Amino acid sequence: MKLKDLGEFGLIKRLAETISINDAQVVAGIGDDAAVIKVDGPKLTLFTTDSLIEDVHFTRPALSAYQIGWKALAVNLSDIAAMGGVPEHGLVSIGLPSQTSVDFVDSLYQGIKDLSDKFKVNIVGGDTVSSPQLIVNISLLGEVEEEYLALRSGAKAGDKVLVTGDLGGSAAHRLAGKHLSPQPRVEEGRAIVKRLWPTSMIDISDGLASDLGRICESSQVGAKIWLEKIPVSEKTRQMSEQLGEDFVRLALEGGEDYELLFTAQRVPELTSEMDVSLTVIGEITDQKGKLSLIDKERKSHPLKSKGYEHFEENRF
Amino acid sequence: MKLKDLGEFGLIKRLAETISINDAQVVAGIGDDAAVIKVDGPKLTLFTTDSLIEDVHFTRPALSAYQIGWKALAVNLSDIAAMGGVPEHGLVSIGLPSQTSVDFVDSLYQGIKDLSDKFKVNIVGGDTVSSPQLIVNISLLGEVEEEYLALRSGAKAGDKVLVTGDLGGSAAHRLAGKHLSPQPRVEEGRAIVKRLWPTSMIDISDGLASDLGRICESSQVGAKIWLEKIPVSEKTRQMSEQLGEDFVRLALEGGEDYELLFTAQRVPELTSEMDVSLTVIGEITDQKGKLSLIDKERKSHPLKSKGYEHFEENRF
Repeated sequence: MKLKDLGEFGLIKRLAETISINDAQVVAGIGDDAAVIKVDGPKLTLFTTDSLIEDVHFTRPALSAYQIGWKALAVNLSDIAAMGGVPEHGLVSIGLPSQTSVDFVDSLYQGIKDLSDKFKVNIVGGDTVSSPQLIVNISLLGEVEEEYLALRSGAKAGDKVLVTGDLGGSAAHRLAGKHLSPQPRVEEGRAIVKRLWPTSMIDISDGLASDLGRICESSQVGAKIWLEKIPVSEKTRQMSEQLGEDFVRLALEGGEDYELLFTAQRVPELTSEMDVSLTVIGEITDQKGKLSLIDKERKSHPLKSKGYEHFEENRF
Repeated sequence: MKLKDLGEFGLIKRLAETISINDAQVVAGIGDDAAVIKVDGPKLTLFTTDSLIEDVHFTRPALSAYQIGWKALAVNLSDIAAMGGVPEHGLVSIGLPSQTSVDFVDSLYQGIKDLSDKFKVNIVGGDTVSSPQLIVNISLLGEVEEEYLALRSGAKAGDKVLVTGDLGGSAAHRLAGKHLSPQPRVEEGRAIVKRLWPTSMIDISDGLASDLGRICESSQVGAKIWLEKIPVSEKTRQMSEQLGEDFVRLALEGGEDYELLFTAQRVPELTSEMDVSLTVIGEITDQKGKLSLIDKERKSHPLKSKGYEHFEENRF
């Protein structure tokens, strides 16, 4: 069997089954945005890693060196944000073709530095090796108070489904050959865990449909999403139209928005308290594994848990 | 300027200068085997990462999938060992060509699992992405008591230079087209910090000369090594002869031995207390940055701090 038949998520499940964890210290292992480790002291340690690989996650020169560095850290910060945590220390492991200019590397590091400064993250080390492709791997440590930890697994029937910001913008920009520098929702994640007591949370890296599917799978519930409620900016709508793309599809399947998707029992006076908009887009149901999209006419459509998945033959 | 002109170590220095750390929590950042972080509780957190990249660090099929997995974890365990620490939790980030068989991946993971079981390390997560080359990145968390922490920077003139096991074997095997599965010296590292109070320690990943050079640079000292004392196994001598290679050169420059190199003031009854052999191979001097090799006739030769360095045009 080849990986493309198994798919990325099939592979991750397989590996999670192979590697069993027998340690009371590990609160959550494979299958959430970050690993959660109980240490001495009042806070939990969060531990996550993500790689960006040239010609897989980005191409040059579509993404500048600065943007590559920025994004490599941003995707990791987003994972910590999705746990309700505060990022703290990072390691940067870079694979570089030997013909790379030092200016390029300096600029890549500047992108990492500017974003790490913004969130007071210390880059405490890493390694640098030669590589045929440019590869940037970042590992990040963070922490979260036990009472604020947001896993993927706590959603209950009746919970509202909410999302920060708006969706589809990253995909629309990508299709137009432009790139956004993703803004990880670290402060927003903290505000959400402190004020709204989310029952589950994830960051939208692979698309709303796919990442909502993960919450539903971990929580053993279903969800319905109201199509009209999905927040899509006017600019994304315009760009989609120019590109002949369906903006709903971009919002559902586009990925790389790095907004936070979460569920909560109560949603009091949302927007007035935070800088970023929060939108209630749906509801959790007890129909395990079933995702539905409700259209304007209140007709229900099955929503496939489909987003960007590695090892597929046909990618979005 | 291109990277090959700057070299790996030049690059790391440059980056260490760019990225300043302003946090009392960070005991040691860029420039040791692992980052050292002060957390709540009595122990320090160790944090390290290392990548193995196909056609850079290994070729297929010279290394089996199992060996690739094993080695990817071993190099990280070795970094924790070199700090005197105990490894605890790991994240595995793998880049895989989509044509890879699932069997291959299972076998790679088995190599990681067997070694992680041996040292009671929990693999708590990671990510899997498609990639043109096979890439295995592992990040590892460990811990060490403050009094046992071994940095690179504490060597003093008059200290003895010691090494565990014997050297050059890995290079001899590589040249013969064979591969050893490196055995990280975790237990030995613990025994060393508990019994011998090393003033500095490092693992030999790039070669004795190169890694001793790093201790001397960090500690602002020099060193002399007695050629006859360098421990080289009979088997490595024989293999070197068959290959027409100088076994001293393999021991000095071969790299990938993953033995521990350390300095200590006193070296009482060494071998009787440990499973692995310990050899006194030299002495620290106050001649900052000067490395010398003393031959049988007591003649001193300058020892170049040269081992495997990435981005060089001519590699060992």
